[in-house]
Amino acid sequence: MEKVDLNDIKWTKLSGLVPVVVQDVDSKDVLMQAFVNEEALRLTIKTGYAHYFSRSRNMIWKKGETSGHTQKIVKILIDCDEDCILYMVKQSGVACHTGEYSCFFREINALE
Amino acid sequence: MEKVDLNDIKWTKLSGLVPVVVQDVDSKDVLMQAFVNEEALRLTIKTGYAHYFSRSRNMIWKKGETSGHTQKIVKILIDCDEDCILYMVKQSGVACHTGEYSCFFREINALE
Repeated sequence: MEKVDLNDIKWTKLSGLVPVVVQDVDSKDVLMQAFVNEEALRLTIKTGYAHYFSRSRNMIWKKGETSGHTQKIVKILIDCDEDCILYMVKQSGVACHTGEYSCFFREINALE
Repeated sequence: MEKVDLNDIKWTKLSGLVPVVVQDVDSKDVLMQAFVNEEALRLTIKTGYAHYFSRSRNMIWKKGETSGHTQKIVKILIDCDEDCILYMVKQSGVACHTGEYSCFFREINALE
């Protein structure tokens, strides 16, 4: 698989952040979506565990730091435009703070 | 499955846009990530085909409008915070403008 350098990532569109999609490597369920800055991505790569940047708290956080529900990185992919990242992870416990396995547990109420 | 009203979506964090993750309903591959505003989401719901908002062109676009590579909507989910949407789709042709099936076809070059 072709590789892309960290320096090629388009950090600028969202003031230094890019969206990260998080997928369970086994079930392939989409677990959550968050944002990273370059430092959060470097920490993720270095430690092998998912880190993110919180826009509300304006700080880097490690997933599972308080809950224990960590995400072990299996693979990190990047999209064609270099402005979105995909973490493929082994999820410990559940991904969502509500206790649901995935954050995507509701439909939008306008389909019918 | 519990449902969430369109009005509950947190449009404000990104100046009226929320990220959309797009997943193939059959293979469960993550195909792409884009953004929607409320109108693009309403068009998606109304037509049954994925629409997005282009930040670079500042306009709504229908996926496949020129390429023919449309995305038929099977389900639309929303995350716990109501600030990210997941389209589960039947992809016609390929999702990526490069000709790859998914936009996520490269790894980040810092894992080893």
